[in-house]
Amino acid sequence: MKGVSDGAPRAIAQGVNGAGALCARMEDMDTIGVVDTMFARYDMGGEALDALKQCPGYGTRFTTIRRTVPGFKDLAVAAKKLIEEDGCRIVVALGMPGKEAVDKVCAHEASTGIMTAQLMTNTPILEVFVHEDESDDPAILASVFKNRSRDHAINAYFMLYEPEKLVARAGQGVRQGFGDAGPLKL
Amino acid sequence: MKGVSDGAPRAIAQGVNGAGALCARMEDMDTIGVVDTMFARYDMGGEALDALKQCPGYGTRFTTIRRTVPGFKDLAVAAKKLIEEDGCRIVVALGMPGKEAVDKVCAHEASTGIMTAQLMTNTPILEVFVHEDESDDPAILASVFKNRSRDHAINAYFMLYEPEKLVARAGQGVRQGFGDAGPLKL
Amino acid sequence: MKGVSDGAPRAIAQGVNGAGALCARMEDMDTIGVVDTMFARYDMGGEALDALKQCPGYGTRFTTIRRTVPGFKDLAVAAKKLIEEDGCRIVVALGMPGKEAVDKVCAHEASTGIMTAQLMTNTPILEVFVHEDESDDPAILASVFKNRSRDHAINAYFMLYEPEKLVARAGQGVRQGFGDAGPLKL
Amino acid sequence: MKGVSDGAPRAIAQGVNGAGALCARMEDMDTIGVVDTMFARYDMGGEALDALKQCPGYGTRFTTIRRTVPGFKDLAVAAKKLIEEDGCRIVVALGMPGKEAVDKVCAHEASTGIMTAQLMTNTPILEVFVHEDESDDPAILASVFKNRSRDHAINAYFMLYEPEKLVARAGQGVRQGFGDAGPLKL
Amino acid sequence: MKGVSDGAPRAIAQGVNGAGALCARMEDMDTIGVVDTMFARYDMGGEALDALKQCPGYGTRFTTIRRTVPGFKDLAVAAKKLIEEDGCRIVVALGMPGKEAVDKVCAHEASTGIMTAQLMTNTPILEVFVHEDESDDPAILASVFKNRSRDHAINAYFMLYEPEKLVARAGQGVRQGFGDAGPLKL
Repeated sequence: MKGVSDGAPRAIAQGVNGAGALCARMEDMDTIGVVDTMFARYDMGGEALDALKQCPGYGTRFTTIRRTVPGFKDLAVAAKKLIEEDGCRIVVALGMPGKEAVDKVCAHEASTGIMTAQLMTNTPILEVFVHEDESDDPAILASVFKNRSRDHAINAYFMLYEPEKLVARAGQGVRQGFGDAGPLKL
Repeated sequence: MKGVSDGAPRAIAQGVNGAGALCARMEDMDTIGVVDTMFARYDMGGEALDALKQCPGYGTRFTTIRRTVPGFKDLAVAAKKLIEEDGCRIVVALGMPGKEAVDKVCAHEASTGIMTAQLMTNTPILEVFVHEDESDDPAILASVFKNRSRDHAINAYFMLYEPEKLVARAGQGVRQGFGDAGPLKL
Repeated sequence: MKGVSDGAPRAIAQGVNGAGALCARMEDMDTIGVVDTMFARYDMGGEALDALKQCPGYGTRFTTIRRTVPGFKDLAVAAKKLIEEDGCRIVVALGMPGKEAVDKVCAHEASTGIMTAQLMTNTPILEVFVHEDESDDPAILASVFKNRSRDHAINAYFMLYEPEKLVARAGQGVRQGFGDAGPLKL
Repeated sequence: MKGVSDGAPRAIAQGVNGAGALCARMEDMDTIGVVDTMFARYDMGGEALDALKQCPGYGTRFTTIRRTVPGFKDLAVAAKKLIEEDGCRIVVALGMPGKEAVDKVCAHEASTGIMTAQLMTNTPILEVFVHEDESDDPAILASVFKNRSRDHAINAYFMLYEPEKLVARAGQGVRQGFGDAGPLKL
Repeated sequence: MKGVSDGAPRAIAQGVNGAGALCARMEDMDTIGVVDTMFARYDMGGEALDALKQCPGYGTRFTTIRRTVPGFKDLAVAAKKLIEEDGCRIVVALGMPGKEAVDKVCAHEASTGIMTAQLMTNTPILEVFVHEDESDDPAILASVFKNRSRDHAINAYFMLYEPEKLVARAGQGVRQGFGDAGPLKL
């Protein structure tokens, strides 16, 4: 029956960049998903895609696929569909919680959904949220948008292909967006 | 056994507009679901339906189906049933959280349910909430009800049929109800 | 194996009113479930049952079944069992959150459970909560208990048998317990 | 494959009191589960077990099984395993949230897990939490620990074997630990 | 299809220490999983692994496997994959919530995910969180990191192999990181 979820990935990838994902499967490349929002005030998805293009194996070992949704509460199901319908092995989900109190509650709901989507698919979805009030200075905020989006895209790459890089940095106070905190100073 | 959930969509669509949905299937049209509440103080569902009627392909490529429930905590299961029993490919769920503190908690519960329903069905449910205290001016509040309900109905259309429109607006600070925030100004 | 949940409804309804539910099935009547608590300070379940008895079709088209649990955090699983083991097509779940801060958190947990139970069964469970601090006047509070319990029981009836009544009242600011807020006044 | 959850109850009950549970099944007795924590500052599980021993049918109609986990966030999965692996028909889960703000958040997480475990198993898990700050007087607090643990153990017995006792007390303001609130006084 | 979750454990363990886990299965040893973060400012995973090495049966009855993820919100799915794909019978998940208000919300989301992962797998995941603001003194904080990580690793060992040790300490006010609170003093 049309439009009814049956849990099975569709035979043919659909929508934006669908052809690319189809190629990826035919050539046995992995696909890394990127999903962002119209609500954010910075092209977070564009940064993530650009960072992935500069990782080793782009275009040979893995390709990317992008979706954009209205707001960050739409990210979770979009990420899950990227995994289950488009075959993504990992997804980077990017959004910007606004300044108001209600935005903080919505961010919590969005995060909970992203958490559940990961558990339902056994696939990591890296949540990249930049809060609009992390800085009053637009230039600083822009750098946070840029750096955090790129850093987590690279984390996605490491998780798939070089997990030992993550183990080597365990407990080192690594951050994304601002500078690293570093390990506890004794 | 009667009334026991078996996970399978019913052979024949039931209830309000059921005949319409049945027709949609027979003619291979998509169905877009709209569910709203008696609790809200504005006919949000009516606006969403009207906006969808003015989208390309209404009556040929897609039709609509409407449900109304008592309050916004009843939206999630109603939306899930629209997807699984009535074959909707996307749902617009509209409600109005009240002014009291307890209403905010209820809104959070309602949102969590809508989030989970999406993940269980791999189908987007666009949550359209207008908080009763977004404006003290009834005229402004009415315009928010109207615009947000219509804007998200159109987003549902775009998500199904023109997803590239969403990608083109990624990170542009797009809003529904009030004016757009626009991208970060540097 | 005895006592292990296997997801299948039991062949024979058990417990309080079990015989009634069994009869309902044999005669192809629907069953509407009512579950309330010992914790509440008003017989909410009794009111709901009485209101349902006065709805058209009671005893011919539908019957009722009642459960009572210790507190409102026990409502969700009891409602789910009414649906999956006793074949209820809809459930009215009634409880009274207390006055303390911890009671508010518990109410949130109870509501989340009721939400999830609905999504797992594709069956509406109408949550009827009366907060002990909605009024300091016992007479007013009693009227809220009575009216809200009855109003939601009738909503359950409408959702099953006359859903068009709900659509007709969409966006009309309908309330249960106190008077209606009415539509936004412009 | 060893250690991988397969959803099936184990053929042979394991761990503490495993032999007892095995006997219970062979003799077709029910099993009531009791799980408590090392974190709590009172032997809550011991009280619950003792109260159950004094209920009619102990040792003939039902037996008990006990588990202890580190803290209350470990209760949910332990209770679910008691149901699915050890065949318990109901579980009493006992814990003590501490005094700090972070303890309150953890209590909420623990409760949410217990709620979900019930819904996944269609089996009641009675949550018995005594907050460390319910009284500054150790003697009063000890009586709350004792009474609430015992009262809920007896509730578990009633839910299984005498559910009509609960219906008879619906809306009567029944409490566990401190005295009953009683029905609303008009 | 590559990269799509199918619920089945992979035939061959992958990634960091994969060979060790494979050996464990071939020799019928249990595997205990340890997952920590780059975000934390102390090598929590290293402490847990070291404590497990000193438990009876290390290398004969059980072995260990380690993963490191970016932040604590990535722990839940990593732990679930350790259970379902790498066959772990129990997992120790270690992280450090930061000092800011948003970090507390994130910690709640991370905990909720870990809770759900346990319920989906019927396998305990011991959450070991050290809040960055538990002490202003780096030396004290370091001792909390060390002791809590090691204590919970040992709890994981006891839960698998000596559960009667936990029962013996029920209600004794046992803590990890700081000193025990002890039972209520009357």
